[in-house]
Amino acid sequence: MAFDPASLTYDARGLVPAIAQDHATGEVLMMAWMNAEAVARTLETGRVTYWSRSRQSFWVKGETSGHIQRLVELRIDCDRDCLLLLIEQVGPACHTHRRSCFYTAVREGAEQVFLDPMG
Amino acid sequence: MAFDPASLTYDARGLVPAIAQDHATGEVLMMAWMNAEAVARTLETGRVTYWSRSRQSFWVKGETSGHIQRLVELRIDCDRDCLLLLIEQVGPACHTHRRSCFYTAVREGAEQVFLDPMG
Repeated sequence: MAFDPASLTYDARGLVPAIAQDHATGEVLMMAWMNAEAVARTLETGRVTYWSRSRQSFWVKGETSGHIQRLVELRIDCDRDCLLLLIEQVGPACHTHRRSCFYTAVREGAEQVFLDPMG
Repeated sequence: MAFDPASLTYDARGLVPAIAQDHATGEVLMMAWMNAEAVARTLETGRVTYWSRSRQSFWVKGETSGHIQRLVELRIDCDRDCLLLLIEQVGPACHTHRRSCFYTAVREGAEQVFLDPMG
């Protein structure tokens, strides 16, 4: 079946959450949002493109920082309301210069930062 | 710093997306939603508890199916508006009896189901 981005289930804002996972290591790097056009652009260009809710504009990941995400495979969940992006990440995914945005763990009831910014 | 579920950034519905990842294999199994009380219950009990948007009630994953999720570690992203749950998954995570909800890939422009239901 040919894939049509319009066939996904978007929320009231027209967005779907997209989880970015390192295709080689399995590390979950970040979660951001896409609208149908961002999904289409990501598939067309192979460069992961989100929709920035704060800026209300397309966000070609790494366009300014160089920390691009190359799409390896796009996956859809059973409810068609969440995407999993298998990607190649150049450098850090997080704006704090950490590899992953999920660098804080809750351990024994306390928050612990376990990942350092990349050099 | 002691972790307080109220310190997370919830959306207008009071929810935060939670990504469940197999702690051993790295496989991303599903994405669902939590409110502050679901986060607290998950940490207290070690059993992953979501908030069901359709049923508007707490959803102790696996309570009826037996396909429970035991929390290994809860992680918070940089914006504090998304959670990553490292878990032990008993059986399939998906209601289709597949290990993961992300069983459909877009390959060469077409949808392809690449994962079978578990036996």
